[in-house]
Amino acid sequence: MSRAGPIGVFDSGVGGLTVVGEIRRRLPGEKILYFGDTARVPYGNKSPRTVERYSREIAHFLARQGIRFLVVACNTSSAVALPGLEKRAKLPVLGMILPGAEAAVRASRTGRIGLIGTRATVASGAYARAVKALAPRARFFAAACPLLVPLVEEGWAQDPVAEEVVARYLGPLLARDVDTLILGCTHYPVLVPVLRKVAGPSVALISSSEAAAEALVRRLGPGAAGRAAGAGGLTCFVTDAGTYFREVAERILGHPLGPLKAVDEERLVLP
Amino acid sequence: MSRAGPIGVFDSGVGGLTVVGEIRRRLPGEKILYFGDTARVPYGNKSPRTVERYSREIAHFLARQGIRFLVVACNTSSAVALPGLEKRAKLPVLGMILPGAEAAVRASRTGRIGLIGTRATVASGAYARAVKALAPRARFFAAACPLLVPLVEEGWAQDPVAEEVVARYLGPLLARDVDTLILGCTHYPVLVPVLRKVAGPSVALISSSEAAAEALVRRLGPGAAGRAAGAGGLTCFVTDAGTYFREVAERILGHPLGPLKAVDEERLVLP
Repeated sequence: MSRAGPIGVFDSGVGGLTVVGEIRRRLPGEKILYFGDTARVPYGNKSPRTVERYSREIAHFLARQGIRFLVVACNTSSAVALPGLEKRAKLPVLGMILPGAEAAVRASRTGRIGLIGTRATVASGAYARAVKALAPRARFFAAACPLLVPLVEEGWAQDPVAEEVVARYLGPLLARDVDTLILGCTHYPVLVPVLRKVAGPSVALISSSEAAAEALVRRLGPGAAGRAAGAGGLTCFVTDAGTYFREVAERILGHPLGPLKAVDEERLVLP
Repeated sequence: MSRAGPIGVFDSGVGGLTVVGEIRRRLPGEKILYFGDTARVPYGNKSPRTVERYSREIAHFLARQGIRFLVVACNTSSAVALPGLEKRAKLPVLGMILPGAEAAVRASRTGRIGLIGTRATVASGAYARAVKALAPRARFFAAACPLLVPLVEEGWAQDPVAEEVVARYLGPLLARDVDTLILGCTHYPVLVPVLRKVAGPSVALISSSEAAAEALVRRLGPGAAGRAAGAGGLTCFVTDAGTYFREVAERILGHPLGPLKAVDEERLVLP
């Protein structure tokens, strides 16, 4: 693998920055190009065909910027588009599903594993297949939670309304006695306090964002982790620069962002 | 105005079908071409520049299908893109803002008028300008309600969670003693029972969908209303055919839809 070139990370919107935050804590010396498809967000209720096309367009755009590694920091894209991206991309690709499934299988004592995610992520069956491949005797239960991303983006993650909605979505999973819950969407780490309160102390909460960052460190090897922080940096591309991206992004990352680079959708052309 | 050609209606997604339903009750003899931009929905959190471009692309596509009249059945598009569409389109255009504002001014006894809508609709100030132009002494108050569309699309419009969220959003408007509330988003008519419960019996609820349909009847004149129902029909174009469009659409319209026509975004090219 080439040692030159930044790491490319993409998501439908701002949520993938939870992955960027975890990567930067572990690899402060890496340059990161982040792409948020803010003009076409969200992906979670859309069809595999549409999500695949958008994902391929963005992967192609980031490859043209000279990245050496691609992180698909969107569970929906990972769930429906990863095989196609891995086949087409001429660089290594890491998605969210396998790292999350591995961390869940490691954490679970009873083998009863739950997933919360978008409609498209749950419908894809990608997490179910990954968990079953790693632990054939595991029992897997999933709940699509379309309201959680809007709640996080409205800034209501710590609100009683969020608690009520989370309780409704988690109810059927907790009734199946899951001892491990995969947070299968990059927005969900922000909901950990509410998820913890509703699920109770005995359920392991697996952040797919943390799991993916750890997998990236392993894939890049010890050289990357040793780089000095001064060499690192974050550049953000967005398809709609006029949205609340900056506000939510700075809340997630905990520091100000540099200028956003606007990318017209016309530039997202497939070869 | 030409008597031939269907009426074109567009929205970011499925919500504009509340307008179609109102049009079809009044004008059963009209052919309607509906366009739902389901691959890029929602518009309500996006920037004016992005919403303008998407709206122009769709208006141009529908014009090429031979429509004789364009209804912008999306409050966000109407709020930010209508002046540009009216200038460019070579056919008559009707948006949601003026009909909604007129109906609100007619309904209000105290001149204290409230608006609920998406972030982009509220931020545009379009309803405030329209109300003030019609009733310069009116007092206007607005609340952006980003969670209401996701709640409707999740099918939770009659849920206690919806009631709690609506109460939170309406609180500041009711505290200003509005006697009239404009439902400034085509999804909101589905929330009328909850809005009525929270706002109480004395607040007039103005559906922008109904107001726009009534304005269309006036604009088309008596000939259109007299057409026999047999000549009418509804054709739906969508940019993502694999979503929950059909399910939500049939719930809104109360009858089954014919086949959806998928439109690749590549075909949405501006001249």
